[in-house]
Amino acid sequence: MPDPLTIWSNTKLPDDLLDRLQRSIAPHRIVQPANATANNLAGAPRDPQLDRADVALGQPDPDQVMGNARLKWVQLTTAGYTRYDAPAFREAVKRNGTIVCNASSIYAEPCAQHALAMMLALARRLPQALENQRGGREWPYLPLRSESRLLNGQTVLLVGYGAIARRLAELLAPMRMNVIGFRRHPRGDEAGVRVLAVTELDDWLPRGDHVVNILPLSRQTELFFNATRLAKLKRTACYYNIGRGSTNDEYALWTALETRHFAAAYIDATMAEPLPPDDPLWSAPNCYITPHTAGGHDDEFARHVEMFIENLRRLQAGEELIDRIM
Amino acid sequence: MPDPLTIWSNTKLPDDLLDRLQRSIAPHRIVQPANATANNLAGAPRDPQLDRADVALGQPDPDQVMGNARLKWVQLTTAGYTRYDAPAFREAVKRNGTIVCNASSIYAEPCAQHALAMMLALARRLPQALENQRGGREWPYLPLRSESRLLNGQTVLLVGYGAIARRLAELLAPMRMNVIGFRRHPRGDEAGVRVLAVTELDDWLPRGDHVVNILPLSRQTELFFNATRLAKLKRTACYYNIGRGSTNDEYALWTALETRHFAAAYIDATMAEPLPPDDPLWSAPNCYITPHTAGGHDDEFARHVEMFIENLRRLQAGEELIDRIM
Repeated sequence: MPDPLTIWSNTKLPDDLLDRLQRSIAPHRIVQPANATANNLAGAPRDPQLDRADVALGQPDPDQVMGNARLKWVQLTTAGYTRYDAPAFREAVKRNGTIVCNASSIYAEPCAQHALAMMLALARRLPQALENQRGGREWPYLPLRSESRLLNGQTVLLVGYGAIARRLAELLAPMRMNVIGFRRHPRGDEAGVRVLAVTELDDWLPRGDHVVNILPLSRQTELFFNATRLAKLKRTACYYNIGRGSTNDEYALWTALETRHFAAAYIDATMAEPLPPDDPLWSAPNCYITPHTAGGHDDEFARHVEMFIENLRRLQAGEELIDRIM
Repeated sequence: MPDPLTIWSNTKLPDDLLDRLQRSIAPHRIVQPANATANNLAGAPRDPQLDRADVALGQPDPDQVMGNARLKWVQLTTAGYTRYDAPAFREAVKRNGTIVCNASSIYAEPCAQHALAMMLALARRLPQALENQRGGREWPYLPLRSESRLLNGQTVLLVGYGAIARRLAELLAPMRMNVIGFRRHPRGDEAGVRVLAVTELDDWLPRGDHVVNILPLSRQTELFFNATRLAKLKRTACYYNIGRGSTNDEYALWTALETRHFAAAYIDATMAEPLPPDDPLWSAPNCYITPHTAGGHDDEFARHVEMFIENLRRLQAGEELIDRIM
């Protein structure tokens, strides 16, 4: 019987889930900093308990992870991992023998459904109908019908072709759209979807009816959708961001919407979060914003607990962990 | 060469489509009443030209159709056909040898996408995000995430299992929901979907996460979703009406929403259309209304023209017409 592990977690779980986790992993024990949070986008401050942990669950301080040779495994609770995605971090965890996993299996499904919800909401003019309902309560039957669109046959560009995009392509399949994915290095094994190198995107932007930004944030992707790229979108196109706010130039986005350069934007991530109430993006024409909720779902934390239990089992059995990124 | 047909149409088409139709069907000719309308839910008044027509396209007066033994074919421009669905009408067209077709092929796709849009909008809390955007511009990250739902594994009851429901079941397939259809007479050939007799619905209503009313309007379905049936829905259920407003008791629906008996309603059809601005349904809690736009799409009339041309070809070739209902 190996020694019990000390599992540090700064993810604040509901009491019943924490109970379930503790019972499932006994005799290993959980330690939590006082400032554990349910907001898994927030970076954690340093916590001395992490230096004595064998496993970390949540969003541990990157420098502390790098300095802890004892850490066998870090389970992140997000799909994005910008704050860990640096050469020095990769080298340190490799040197320390620390496995790092993200949670892309957990977020692919809600993010893909969120993106589909946004696409269909714009196509079916749901925001316009709600604004009518909260406003003049007219019955704009003919205009809304004639402005509604079928997704069938439209071209959708999935920019950033990872787990979310793969799942979104599956959800879109019954609508027989022209789905094209873009990633740094197409592998050729992306079943059923045409995937091109992101260097080809600029040629495709003028042809996209739906341009879906699912880019992770890195030095290469920061401000990727800048004024030049946004200017390539056609007048009837819709733009979506369900990735990270800093992958588009928000001022350029606002300008494009103000000048009606393309039809609409549906945005789940902004450069500053929370987006300040006086930010002009809130009132840009045809701009709809959800407050970084694309990955959320009512059993999100239950799914983190299930995945952690499964990955812990795999760790101890010497099997490959789910969603290993380093 | 048979004699040219006189085709009466009270569907107001854009000029380019009317041109295309006339050129495609020459030497047959189109006659239009002065009051032709793009609103294909409006019943037409009597028009003397219809009495001299061989074919009717649009929404002809039912009594006039019954009295015109010359009519070979009536092509309706709606999926619903309540005003023609009477024994006397059926007998008259049978006696006259008049074929009657509806347009369910045209409306199945947009209606199914509209229903999916509604389901995903509620699941992803899009209306709440828009109300925040138009209101306090807070950043309700944690509450909206925890209230969001995945559709996966949820139970959806499709009440009225025709072309729209079949298509909606196809769109929902990637989400692996528990889809159950209900119709008067299950045929046993409903591929891939469990379809039950509508007499079994009452037992299922307490189990539905999504109850989708796609009933056509008839004497049997009028006020079908009455207070008793709506009371069977569970607290977390969502109710949808993309059929006809009179198939639910709107006062009972309003009461159920006011008392938070179930979670939300997304309604595309109301008993009175337009719904008067002072109707309390507009402001019932968790009630969202689109103004009978489920079937609309920008190329709706182009698709009517294509279908009419194809059905005319079939009529003259002696083939079975698409969407024949009588």
